[in-house]
Amino acid sequence: MRKNQLFLCSLLISLFMYAQEDPLNVIVFGAHPDDCDVDAGGTAILFSKMGHKVKFVSLTNGDAGHYAMGGGELAKIRIAEAKEAGKRFGVEYTVLDNHDGELMPTLENRLKVIREIRKWNADIVIAPRPNDYHPDHRYTGVLVQDAAYMVIVPNVAADTPPLEKNPVFLYSEDRFQKPSPFEPDIAVIIDDVFNQKIHAMAAHESQFFDWLPWTSGNLDKVPKDEKGRLEFLANWRSRKPNRATLECLKTWYGAKAANAKHAEGFEICEYGKQPSETEIKRLFPMLKKE
Amino acid sequence: MRKNQLFLCSLLISLFMYAQEDPLNVIVFGAHPDDCDVDAGGTAILFSKMGHKVKFVSLTNGDAGHYAMGGGELAKIRIAEAKEAGKRFGVEYTVLDNHDGELMPTLENRLKVIREIRKWNADIVIAPRPNDYHPDHRYTGVLVQDAAYMVIVPNVAADTPPLEKNPVFLYSEDRFQKPSPFEPDIAVIIDDVFNQKIHAMAAHESQFFDWLPWTSGNLDKVPKDEKGRLEFLANWRSRKPNRATLECLKTWYGAKAANAKHAEGFEICEYGKQPSETEIKRLFPMLKKE
Amino acid sequence: MRKNQLFLCSLLISLFMYAQEDPLNVIVFGAHPDDCDVDAGGTAILFSKMGHKVKFVSLTNGDAGHYAMGGGELAKIRIAEAKEAGKRFGVEYTVLDNHDGELMPTLENRLKVIREIRKWNADIVIAPRPNDYHPDHRYTGVLVQDAAYMVIVPNVAADTPPLEKNPVFLYSEDRFQKPSPFEPDIAVIIDDVFNQKIHAMAAHESQFFDWLPWTSGNLDKVPKDEKGRLEFLANWRSRKPNRATLECLKTWYGAKAANAKHAEGFEICEYGKQPSETEIKRLFPMLKKE
Amino acid sequence: MRKNQLFLCSLLISLFMYAQEDPLNVIVFGAHPDDCDVDAGGTAILFSKMGHKVKFVSLTNGDAGHYAMGGGELAKIRIAEAKEAGKRFGVEYTVLDNHDGELMPTLENRLKVIREIRKWNADIVIAPRPNDYHPDHRYTGVLVQDAAYMVIVPNVAADTPPLEKNPVFLYSEDRFQKPSPFEPDIAVIIDDVFNQKIHAMAAHESQFFDWLPWTSGNLDKVPKDEKGRLEFLANWRSRKPNRATLECLKTWYGAKAANAKHAEGFEICEYGKQPSETEIKRLFPMLKKE
Amino acid sequence: MRKNQLFLCSLLISLFMYAQEDPLNVIVFGAHPDDCDVDAGGTAILFSKMGHKVKFVSLTNGDAGHYAMGGGELAKIRIAEAKEAGKRFGVEYTVLDNHDGELMPTLENRLKVIREIRKWNADIVIAPRPNDYHPDHRYTGVLVQDAAYMVIVPNVAADTPPLEKNPVFLYSEDRFQKPSPFEPDIAVIIDDVFNQKIHAMAAHESQFFDWLPWTSGNLDKVPKDEKGRLEFLANWRSRKPNRATLECLKTWYGAKAANAKHAEGFEICEYGKQPSETEIKRLFPMLKKE
Amino acid sequence: MRKNQLFLCSLLISLFMYAQEDPLNVIVFGAHPDDCDVDAGGTAILFSKMGHKVKFVSLTNGDAGHYAMGGGELAKIRIAEAKEAGKRFGVEYTVLDNHDGELMPTLENRLKVIREIRKWNADIVIAPRPNDYHPDHRYTGVLVQDAAYMVIVPNVAADTPPLEKNPVFLYSEDRFQKPSPFEPDIAVIIDDVFNQKIHAMAAHESQFFDWLPWTSGNLDKVPKDEKGRLEFLANWRSRKPNRATLECLKTWYGAKAANAKHAEGFEICEYGKQPSETEIKRLFPMLKKE
Repeated sequence: MRKNQLFLCSLLISLFMYAQEDPLNVIVFGAHPDDCDVDAGGTAILFSKMGHKVKFVSLTNGDAGHYAMGGGELAKIRIAEAKEAGKRFGVEYTVLDNHDGELMPTLENRLKVIREIRKWNADIVIAPRPNDYHPDHRYTGVLVQDAAYMVIVPNVAADTPPLEKNPVFLYSEDRFQKPSPFEPDIAVIIDDVFNQKIHAMAAHESQFFDWLPWTSGNLDKVPKDEKGRLEFLANWRSRKPNRATLECLKTWYGAKAANAKHAEGFEICEYGKQPSETEIKRLFPMLKKE
Repeated sequence: MRKNQLFLCSLLISLFMYAQEDPLNVIVFGAHPDDCDVDAGGTAILFSKMGHKVKFVSLTNGDAGHYAMGGGELAKIRIAEAKEAGKRFGVEYTVLDNHDGELMPTLENRLKVIREIRKWNADIVIAPRPNDYHPDHRYTGVLVQDAAYMVIVPNVAADTPPLEKNPVFLYSEDRFQKPSPFEPDIAVIIDDVFNQKIHAMAAHESQFFDWLPWTSGNLDKVPKDEKGRLEFLANWRSRKPNRATLECLKTWYGAKAANAKHAEGFEICEYGKQPSETEIKRLFPMLKKE
Repeated sequence: MRKNQLFLCSLLISLFMYAQEDPLNVIVFGAHPDDCDVDAGGTAILFSKMGHKVKFVSLTNGDAGHYAMGGGELAKIRIAEAKEAGKRFGVEYTVLDNHDGELMPTLENRLKVIREIRKWNADIVIAPRPNDYHPDHRYTGVLVQDAAYMVIVPNVAADTPPLEKNPVFLYSEDRFQKPSPFEPDIAVIIDDVFNQKIHAMAAHESQFFDWLPWTSGNLDKVPKDEKGRLEFLANWRSRKPNRATLECLKTWYGAKAANAKHAEGFEICEYGKQPSETEIKRLFPMLKKE
Repeated sequence: MRKNQLFLCSLLISLFMYAQEDPLNVIVFGAHPDDCDVDAGGTAILFSKMGHKVKFVSLTNGDAGHYAMGGGELAKIRIAEAKEAGKRFGVEYTVLDNHDGELMPTLENRLKVIREIRKWNADIVIAPRPNDYHPDHRYTGVLVQDAAYMVIVPNVAADTPPLEKNPVFLYSEDRFQKPSPFEPDIAVIIDDVFNQKIHAMAAHESQFFDWLPWTSGNLDKVPKDEKGRLEFLANWRSRKPNRATLECLKTWYGAKAANAKHAEGFEICEYGKQPSETEIKRLFPMLKKE
Repeated sequence: MRKNQLFLCSLLISLFMYAQEDPLNVIVFGAHPDDCDVDAGGTAILFSKMGHKVKFVSLTNGDAGHYAMGGGELAKIRIAEAKEAGKRFGVEYTVLDNHDGELMPTLENRLKVIREIRKWNADIVIAPRPNDYHPDHRYTGVLVQDAAYMVIVPNVAADTPPLEKNPVFLYSEDRFQKPSPFEPDIAVIIDDVFNQKIHAMAAHESQFFDWLPWTSGNLDKVPKDEKGRLEFLANWRSRKPNRATLECLKTWYGAKAANAKHAEGFEICEYGKQPSETEIKRLFPMLKKE
Repeated sequence: MRKNQLFLCSLLISLFMYAQEDPLNVIVFGAHPDDCDVDAGGTAILFSKMGHKVKFVSLTNGDAGHYAMGGGELAKIRIAEAKEAGKRFGVEYTVLDNHDGELMPTLENRLKVIREIRKWNADIVIAPRPNDYHPDHRYTGVLVQDAAYMVIVPNVAADTPPLEKNPVFLYSEDRFQKPSPFEPDIAVIIDDVFNQKIHAMAAHESQFFDWLPWTSGNLDKVPKDEKGRLEFLANWRSRKPNRATLECLKTWYGAKAANAKHAEGFEICEYGKQPSETEIKRLFPMLKKE
């Protein structure tokens, strides 16, 4: 009986704390309907499981990413795949209707990004750096950078109430060295949810089992069965943390870092809020030394 | 008991008829947050009272229309006024966040118009002609023209399901003669709802009692009290149907037309569906000979 | 031997005349890969048969014109169909790579039109009026208008030698009345080549047997066999000359006009060369009274 | 002595009247550095001689209008010619630095037009109609139309104080019939200043004696001497008022109209102030019956 | 008589020296009407006091920078504040009429920058780097970079005579590290004029005492009285030179550098003239070792 | 007889080898009609002499690059000079008709670059980095970067068949340090063809003997005679490889590097294919240790 009372008590405390600590709002921007997934999918699952709210936004509708389909027909398939992926990740998934391969850093697009960030009341904004191999990725980086600070200016996009504070803007990890290499400030171990990430990513069938294998000449190596496909994707996407990420993991996870198999790294963009270590820990509650 | 049975019966018949005849969906586009009201406000009230659905869309946020305010501050006031006006008209009111005085016929804006029309599943689309005294009015006319037909093309704005049929596009009445005068095909007597139209329009305080009187040098003649203001606005906006409108009214209302004090005229745009007389009567059920 | 001499003689005379009378260069602009065909296909066949040179230019690649395909995939099909149609018409067919449904009257597009006209050394330029039901059609009209006169200015598009004289610009026939109705100055009887026109148009399979029937809800009425399809298309496209066209035909053909079953009308654009009756007869050698 | 007193008296009266009646401010827009001259040069001289202020604004720098020069080199020549022409006309002449042959109806250009009108505190604005043979002419017409009304809106081009009243906007005469013919509301007899107009126009040497004769194949017919050139230009530009202009002249000049050899006609644009007959007489003080 | 000779002599010497050493022309670009002041205000005062000419140019009108005002209304306030600040700094202050928060690196804007630099006959051009927290700042950096070199090309902006030599372009100091940190080549001690800088900056009341404190949640801490405001601003803006600036100061000032309390640093942009040490000393005559 | 057999045999072997090793396709992009020449002219000659195919593409027509000419007139001169240079280099030379000094990173321009790369079936693409002293150079860098990867996407520029593999993209050498210095991965000794490079470059007379000397105040030092001009140009353009290039040369040429007088360096862009050492040797067959 006492046990039950204790449990009830602890439940109430939890609820009380939850009431005190609002869930975090995380928004991730990608150029195409599978980019957020690759860049921050594991972290998103972890946030989601802890009761926080995550939104993925693709700035293009992906209507150029296939060898045998295209246009509105393809866009509709990719939007449906993104919706399914969102369910699997436990996140909301929005696809903006810009042509794939034609994303430009216009004011119009910047304002769309500003409104998405405001409507999500974001604490954390994640996007690619403005250097990456695909022009749409680079201009996604530019557009999200250009939304930083402007999200708090009431006269800009006056139809959508501004945020009270500039959120933390983070760059997702990439391998590019020029003009300066990616330097992770935060890195999240996603081993526990790696399989779920792969399963969620697999919802983008037209991408991971059609288009991308085709571009690398591997279309014939893609398994036909569900299980085989998940293994294929897991092998393809499995990449040990590199040296810089490993160093970063150690900072946040201590000894645990050494065994990490899968991680997602993030660099703090200088144009958003510059969080302290304490703030980072509050914003990334999954970062914990054992 | 019999009474109850009768009531039930009549209820069932109503529901059955309702099932047969879906409510009409009417969408009106204007350049500024008071333009739809002036152009089609009375007709909108009539539609609304008959159970049909009407939406007003302002393509700009009206952030230039004042002598002592401007920008986001003004936009917020005008959006709030529009929401209030919408309630009084019995319509949904949407204000797009484009700068007042800067509306351009871009593809981006055209796509926004296409999506609005599709999402409203519109049977009737109303907009100004591309000739009028204000450039924003003219480009509103161009943008809505440019949306005609495209609303049925699935590959355009693929994120929003296309309409099955091109709706009827109507121009709202204006006094301009070049390159050709406005020629009403449809005209609606709004005498019964004229006072409601004036009351609803009066929600745009910053316009009808501040800005527009200021531009004509009449700011000092604007009454301060509610009643006085409504009279002021009613006098200002009271205009006997002109010859062309009167002729048109006769076609649709017969003898009743002669006594009409207030009417709203519409010309069928050649780029949308060309309705037969029967279809017009279905689409404008308030057009009735005594 | 005498026969041979005669033949040689007549050959020389032909060559001599040919040297005197260069073949005419006719260029037709349409918005989509089937528009030139509909507007001026019969006239093009007649020109071509007389040894004159005709070019069709579609300003968009048609990548939005289908209900089940789109993008680059559809563009490639439509380009192939256009090439086949070109062969059947006896004309050169060029498809510019602009998105269907997104044609805008940019300077960039105007310069492309200027270069096409110059490179073809055009005597006659044909395009839609800037009023028509499809925005791409209207902007095709604007773009070709905007190329008139500029084709003779050496400093514009300096990489392509200018024409020495502004060609005759003609609008192709349409049914629109506002701001002013189409008024044919020239009309060509195409009865002799109507079947060839239909056969050539039928090369645009994705349009005439898929997309356009779909938009009008007639997809199920399209025959599957070649012969049936040609009849279906011929019936659909068969339209007796209207009153204005008939009047125009009389001017050029005299009594013969009364029996004409199929004609293509053209209005002289005020922004190009204004040809005299004699010049029109030289430019349209098929216009002949019996 | 009495004579002197009389003179002094009349001088005082003149000054007094001058104080009462401010000089009118007239601004004329053209696409190229010689267009204002052709369209309204005679009228401008008459205004100027009566003490009113006239400004000519060319929206492009004319850098494409020659067969053997181009770019900045040509622009500098044309700007210098315009300055000289301005002196001869008695008007201020401004040349905006847009490329000739590339004028587009952008917001940026519209704002430049708005500022010019405001800074000149214009009572009268003259510009071509949006239909004419040269795209730059048409877009000049569009840009000036788009400035009408906006010149009184304080939130637009906020760096330049707005006008208190929308000026009268006039279209200058052209010969184009579609979509509707030019209809003069005002016409000015310029016989007394025709020679001065020709002399002033002759300042645009690169145009009237080089480029335009070249485009019509008459370069070899251009005289080399000053006197010959003036005669050549006077003959070329001499055109009896057409029927519509003649009718209009009669309204304003009465019997005198019949003998008019040279006139400039203007049509009132519907988007500016609509002046009464009395106002027109005040705005065009040279309109006088004998 | 001798006195007169002496005077004449000294006059001649002055004139001769003046001929040798013209005053320097310095132009500073900022995104908003207070940015030049912060970046180079102290240096500007020093130049001005030595008889050199300084111009501040704000590329936007600042019409978004407030929480309770906006648009043209705010722009007019900010222009007036800038004019007052210009007086206090001893510089000319120009505000271009672009919307705040919407500055884009267009060709149009680049040409405006080119003309400003040319008209000022600039020896030195100062602007932010293309990396900073506000998109308007970044695009100001891009626009001024894009004007470098082009200022000497006569065919570009042909209405404004080109400079004979590419000026020295300098970046003003910022704290951003990516893609590379700011590296001062020149640093100016402004201790002697720091109070004047603060007083001049204080002219931007809507910024330093309204908007910026509001964005950081400090609006209630802003003093109401003049003296208190100056202290508040001085404390806020007081920042000891960082290590890199200190090193740079030593190069130019020697031992004096160690005591410097306030300094403004500048990095030489690679796209303008690369000055030698001697040239830097001539261009920055306030750089002097004791 | 045996000799003939031997010859035939060797011929067959040659043909067989030729079948195995197709000639390489190299495409070089520059902003102006002389930029490719300077950046990669020597390397182009070497490729060409070995039987490989090289194309130079200038993204602007160079119509602003002179002090006494401009516009279309200058463009035509520069196009002719480029054609002549192409002959001397042994390469194809294409000049796109964009205004010099106005190149912007538009989607339209990017698509032109994509089509050029595809039509040339390029193995190697060379362009400037997006940091250089001239805005046209920088935006050439951006445009070519933005074409990388997109060249393999079939839905983009669907009228031109995509490449099967992303080519190697190389930056040509520059001296700029920010945001990061040029780092050569490949460097080619051009001593053997330096004189040919100078002779080919000399075809751009308007540049190397007019405009560029004028900008540096050296117009009077330009020799009038052919021989003198070549010497003048050779001296001007003679620059010993810097330290970084020398290091790179050693990697590829071994000891031979030490004596190199003239070299052209290239840095591998991260956005194209990342070639292995073996692949680099195949792509640059002139890189050989003795």
